[in-house]
Amino acid sequence: MGNKKKIINDPVYGFITIRHDFILDLIDHPYFQRLRRISQLGLSQLVYPGASHNRFQHALGAMHLMQNVVDELRHKGIDITGEEEKGLLAAILLHDVGHGPFSHALEHSIADKVPHEHISSLIMQKLNTALGGRLDMAISIFNGHYGKHFLHQLVSSQLDMDRLDYLTRDSFFSGVVEGQVGSERIIKMLDVVNDQLVVEEKGIYSVEKFIVARRFMYWQVYLHKTVLSAEFMLVNVLKRARTLTEKGEQLFCTPALHYFLHSNVTEGVFSSDPQALEAFVQLDDYDILTSLKVWQRYPDRVLSELSSRIVNRNLFKIEIGREPFPEEKIKKKMVVVAEKLSVTEEESAYFVIHDLVDNRAYSQQAGGILIRMKDGRIVDASMAGDEQTLKGLNEPVKKWFIAFPELM
Amino acid sequence: MGNKKKIINDPVYGFITIRHDFILDLIDHPYFQRLRRISQLGLSQLVYPGASHNRFQHALGAMHLMQNVVDELRHKGIDITGEEEKGLLAAILLHDVGHGPFSHALEHSIADKVPHEHISSLIMQKLNTALGGRLDMAISIFNGHYGKHFLHQLVSSQLDMDRLDYLTRDSFFSGVVEGQVGSERIIKMLDVVNDQLVVEEKGIYSVEKFIVARRFMYWQVYLHKTVLSAEFMLVNVLKRARTLTEKGEQLFCTPALHYFLHSNVTEGVFSSDPQALEAFVQLDDYDILTSLKVWQRYPDRVLSELSSRIVNRNLFKIEIGREPFPEEKIKKKMVVVAEKLSVTEEESAYFVIHDLVDNRAYSQQAGGILIRMKDGRIVDASMAGDEQTLKGLNEPVKKWFIAFPELM
Amino acid sequence: MGNKKKIINDPVYGFITIRHDFILDLIDHPYFQRLRRISQLGLSQLVYPGASHNRFQHALGAMHLMQNVVDELRHKGIDITGEEEKGLLAAILLHDVGHGPFSHALEHSIADKVPHEHISSLIMQKLNTALGGRLDMAISIFNGHYGKHFLHQLVSSQLDMDRLDYLTRDSFFSGVVEGQVGSERIIKMLDVVNDQLVVEEKGIYSVEKFIVARRFMYWQVYLHKTVLSAEFMLVNVLKRARTLTEKGEQLFCTPALHYFLHSNVTEGVFSSDPQALEAFVQLDDYDILTSLKVWQRYPDRVLSELSSRIVNRNLFKIEIGREPFPEEKIKKKMVVVAEKLSVTEEESAYFVIHDLVDNRAYSQQAGGILIRMKDGRIVDASMAGDEQTLKGLNEPVKKWFIAFPELM
Amino acid sequence: MGNKKKIINDPVYGFITIRHDFILDLIDHPYFQRLRRISQLGLSQLVYPGASHNRFQHALGAMHLMQNVVDELRHKGIDITGEEEKGLLAAILLHDVGHGPFSHALEHSIADKVPHEHISSLIMQKLNTALGGRLDMAISIFNGHYGKHFLHQLVSSQLDMDRLDYLTRDSFFSGVVEGQVGSERIIKMLDVVNDQLVVEEKGIYSVEKFIVARRFMYWQVYLHKTVLSAEFMLVNVLKRARTLTEKGEQLFCTPALHYFLHSNVTEGVFSSDPQALEAFVQLDDYDILTSLKVWQRYPDRVLSELSSRIVNRNLFKIEIGREPFPEEKIKKKMVVVAEKLSVTEEESAYFVIHDLVDNRAYSQQAGGILIRMKDGRIVDASMAGDEQTLKGLNEPVKKWFIAFPELM
Repeated sequence: MGNKKKIINDPVYGFITIRHDFILDLIDHPYFQRLRRISQLGLSQLVYPGASHNRFQHALGAMHLMQNVVDELRHKGIDITGEEEKGLLAAILLHDVGHGPFSHALEHSIADKVPHEHISSLIMQKLNTALGGRLDMAISIFNGHYGKHFLHQLVSSQLDMDRLDYLTRDSFFSGVVEGQVGSERIIKMLDVVNDQLVVEEKGIYSVEKFIVARRFMYWQVYLHKTVLSAEFMLVNVLKRARTLTEKGEQLFCTPALHYFLHSNVTEGVFSSDPQALEAFVQLDDYDILTSLKVWQRYPDRVLSELSSRIVNRNLFKIEIGREPFPEEKIKKKMVVVAEKLSVTEEESAYFVIHDLVDNRAYSQQAGGILIRMKDGRIVDASMAGDEQTLKGLNEPVKKWFIAFPELM
Repeated sequence: MGNKKKIINDPVYGFITIRHDFILDLIDHPYFQRLRRISQLGLSQLVYPGASHNRFQHALGAMHLMQNVVDELRHKGIDITGEEEKGLLAAILLHDVGHGPFSHALEHSIADKVPHEHISSLIMQKLNTALGGRLDMAISIFNGHYGKHFLHQLVSSQLDMDRLDYLTRDSFFSGVVEGQVGSERIIKMLDVVNDQLVVEEKGIYSVEKFIVARRFMYWQVYLHKTVLSAEFMLVNVLKRARTLTEKGEQLFCTPALHYFLHSNVTEGVFSSDPQALEAFVQLDDYDILTSLKVWQRYPDRVLSELSSRIVNRNLFKIEIGREPFPEEKIKKKMVVVAEKLSVTEEESAYFVIHDLVDNRAYSQQAGGILIRMKDGRIVDASMAGDEQTLKGLNEPVKKWFIAFPELM
Repeated sequence: MGNKKKIINDPVYGFITIRHDFILDLIDHPYFQRLRRISQLGLSQLVYPGASHNRFQHALGAMHLMQNVVDELRHKGIDITGEEEKGLLAAILLHDVGHGPFSHALEHSIADKVPHEHISSLIMQKLNTALGGRLDMAISIFNGHYGKHFLHQLVSSQLDMDRLDYLTRDSFFSGVVEGQVGSERIIKMLDVVNDQLVVEEKGIYSVEKFIVARRFMYWQVYLHKTVLSAEFMLVNVLKRARTLTEKGEQLFCTPALHYFLHSNVTEGVFSSDPQALEAFVQLDDYDILTSLKVWQRYPDRVLSELSSRIVNRNLFKIEIGREPFPEEKIKKKMVVVAEKLSVTEEESAYFVIHDLVDNRAYSQQAGGILIRMKDGRIVDASMAGDEQTLKGLNEPVKKWFIAFPELM
Repeated sequence: MGNKKKIINDPVYGFITIRHDFILDLIDHPYFQRLRRISQLGLSQLVYPGASHNRFQHALGAMHLMQNVVDELRHKGIDITGEEEKGLLAAILLHDVGHGPFSHALEHSIADKVPHEHISSLIMQKLNTALGGRLDMAISIFNGHYGKHFLHQLVSSQLDMDRLDYLTRDSFFSGVVEGQVGSERIIKMLDVVNDQLVVEEKGIYSVEKFIVARRFMYWQVYLHKTVLSAEFMLVNVLKRARTLTEKGEQLFCTPALHYFLHSNVTEGVFSSDPQALEAFVQLDDYDILTSLKVWQRYPDRVLSELSSRIVNRNLFKIEIGREPFPEEKIKKKMVVVAEKLSVTEEESAYFVIHDLVDNRAYSQQAGGILIRMKDGRIVDASMAGDEQTLKGLNEPVKKWFIAFPELM
């Protein structure tokens, strides 16, 4: 039994080997199996058809990298106990277990900005109770309370196994090769000094490429303008569904989505009402898309138009700018929409989206990435290279956008 | 307008370029967009997590290969007109448009063995009417009625663009590298002699590898024993849902699935009742899985147990044999199930599956693959190689299996 | 020191990690460094330009796979001591150290059919003396004298790390993707039963693909007809150089090649005369090609014509057949050559090559590949599959050829 | 004949198709075949064993990309005539034909700083005479004299097919994945405006990644410190050979190398003395390494020690700094060398190398890379991105180094 190794095929790494029965048990749990039904990149697959992979694959991949980094650090003489290893593997495996379907859209519509890390933490606690405390170490590492800080950094930092896997995996499936990072190479360069994760100096170019790749993936994939358009359309259709529900309409929806349309689920509610978490772990992409498909045929024009456009990929046109768009441009678009689609002015607001997105490819403030120079000094990556490349990447970039249907 | 080239990222081929607006229009049509919601390999992703790709990607990929083969054959002096090119591209693009969700399971439960090619043909006709006959050529090629036979062979034969793409793509996403075929190399070796597609002699090893790879993919992916277990469980849960519906129970289900649970849709019905096709083009993976998720909580033990086991990947154990399993073994399993799960003997039949699968990696009878020898002779691939490898692959292989829950 | 891990970039496997200083020392030795100057595929790069890799890379790659299989077998509970591990790594690292430049051509011209395994063994012994016996274990495993037989099988059998690496590597560099074998997957399927290396039943398709890939590589790369032409031309130019030398001509050549042109080095000579081995370890591709380059300008027509044709890739045309070519055809070709190139009839024999090559993709007689069936039986791979694929591959294939300059 | 397409396997791009007999003739010419014997990265393969590829492969690869970009630009409506196409293909094919073995080392020792572009130009002219003027267009494009400037930019600019291929290829063979650039993607983004090559705005991130990758390859591969050490050792051994030759010693060497050791070949000599070019086209890696191998056994300690160290990869230790190293450190090293190796103080200078290298990843001054913004403006790439990444990469980076044998 304790000897039963499980091998999983993975197109990215070839094979993922699971060495511990405990980890196998976690993978088999319905809470984790649910991640099979949550796409990793949500609506990005409307732009990159290959990106149909899901969070289940990503969590396994991150765990695989974690196993590799544990082997690597031990070879370098860093002490990681068997318990810590299992804690690390469990922590990274479950780090995204709190993601809902189309996370960003959900948080901006029916789940009131509850961060997925918070829900991951709640689900882990619930699992821990069921498992008689076997997740104590994982939770302690995940929350940053465990004595060895570098273990937490492996799970969550500017250069953690989460980021290494998602960049590798998302670029693999989207076919955006510029997003590739040399995960294996970076892992070989990792070490620990004074309980801090560091990269050896000769890995500095790999780190720079990692950060440049990350920026690339943000603007070309995660925040691609067509993806933004689709995601904000989804926000609006869910808001509309909530509004109609509040008005007493009985929309077709799955039991799990029903809960969220009828409740105002805040972070507080999640902590206090067990029903919220119970509904959440039932909710996945299938609830959302199935409902949209049915809503296409509903009489409410806002609901049906938006649903139909998402389902059939008839997305809003989007313009990007460095400044907010002028109020009057937005107004004009709304007037056109109201007329062409025969909706009220108020309803036309669902069709003209004005918002901003931002991203910072690297953040020294958030801990940065530390480099161990050949002379022993530990410096921030932005100070270690030949040029000032990383300096610029430390600055956040903001982009405003306006999205609206092309209606002539 | 006519100049508007569209480029789509594809992890398998890098880029897919769409040269014709007509093809773009087909891709944008809701019937084709629906393929985004039909996974290419159905429940195989329960075994190969990476295999979450969908039929939309496959259809685009096959069209990409078709564009390449058209270019290649023209370079070799084979005449393919602009109209024929567009017809070919449309035909391969739409060749799978009639696939329903989890095709095999569907055909064996609620869609009464209607072959997907038949439905593809019906949908193409419907589209053709809407497009004022612009699909005439595509349909003629697809159905094998067009004068140039080799065009049909490119769409449907022992070595067509469908097979070349699905083997390449399915092995790519599943991570089963043994299934890789050198599509590009094979395409370079294609030519046309007397209106027959042929492979040049120096491509004979590529053809053998292609056939061996195909066999490998069948037994390791498409008919992997765990996949069989899952698919036949799905057959049974849908059968149960139909039975309960017939008894008057109102099960949660989407409108599209509702139609199929309440009707007995045969090939004839598809041809005669427009509602059938209308419901069919609304049906996708999301209808099925969403319903299973809800059914987990239903009082009917058969329905809830099977649903829950599929959703949470708690699949039946399966045994494979060269002969049918003895009747008494099946009976014994049913008795255990009836007792442990507290179901009737009749109901226990849903939990003990005994059936067979077969596959033939290569079929000379179905047209085979023709090789043009250096001396000009045209011979079947099984006669062209040094050894008798392909002879054996021409024989069908049958496997019996029995699947049942592990209940101690 | 003992902790100094070395990481080498490898395009095939990503990274190769060297864990033992002893292995590092072997790699640093001039005998091993010499493999950098011996191309892996000799004149195959005249057909596959990418195949410019050398035996140094292959030896490192095979060692990498050996390290992986040691890890894998240990995880499965197979006992391999630290000494045995180092012996295995050293044995596979040095398994090809006795290869000369363009091995096949050399053995058929100036090195009188001394097999490279014999020379590898002699060089290992020489190294062992220098290293104070530290290669005892490696030599014992290499020669098949060590108690645990499966260790020898990992170095030399129908499914050894040598073959796994060279197929993977040669297909990678030549760009002949059909030659790819899933080395990693096969390694995961290996186990040891009764001191015999076995493959688990579920790996049977991987084994079949491995054998089919091997056959493919033989006929498409190693024995590609243009490669045959080039290699036999090289045989002839070296024979001519030997003949001229015996006649007293002083040809330009390097000191190492000088030795071989002036001596008749048989297996016995290698064992008895230390000078022979000394010259051999100085000899590499550079000696041969440099001499050919100079010989292009020599007055002897046979020497200069053949040299020039190889250097500038102006190779003989070659025809392949299942039977020996008729004597009179050969004669006729010789007459044409004699006339067109103004050489004597005797000399014309250098320009018309008639010979045969054979290959057996799989050999049950030579030990075969054993499969452990799920029911525990150990059977030969050719008996384990569904079909008779491997049966045919067990038969040797012979091809006759005739090669000659196109002079018309 | 005119229809005879040739297909070459390439591990990087899969297949390279040669469409024109004229190009095939160039490839078959001995001047071009010689590139098979000139390694692309010289001594870099002492650090990256996989990087054993040669300039022949690179030239074919660059030609393949050129064919692709011609197809792409024509699809976009840019006029490129059949003559221009062949000229472009010939120009890129021959752009490196003037490279000698270990170019950098050669230029700094026995070939007196004659740039390889100059020799490429001379060889093209010589070929052109032989071919009756068929290279007129290629030479005109190569030298920048042809009317359409963008054709020259495709051959030689900050974003030419040369760079796209060598970065792709060198990173592929070295296994340094961080050097990968999305060549295919970049080519799809190219267009021509006012006879200037431009990249569409949506390709800006690809351009940034290209430049970052280029910097990475410079410092990690081309100017890797161990590579520097080896190359400067080679410079010194060739200088020593020249010095000894001038003193009247008769060193073993090939006829081609003989010429260069006995003459002082400047740019002027190449233009005036046909013998120089004649010797040059005979010279390749084989002449150099064969000579080093023999020189290992020469009595002159400088010559034999340096030769032996290069041949057996026993390289100098190297230290890198931002400033010149102090004179006294260099002196001290020389004293140690003189004593330990029993050489004179003058000779000790061959063993202590102090020099600098520099690189600029991107140069706006040298023409830069132009971006066509969505609003139609044409701006330099360093002005087009969100952040200031490229600004820093526009600055040259200088590194000083000192290299010397580790002698205790």
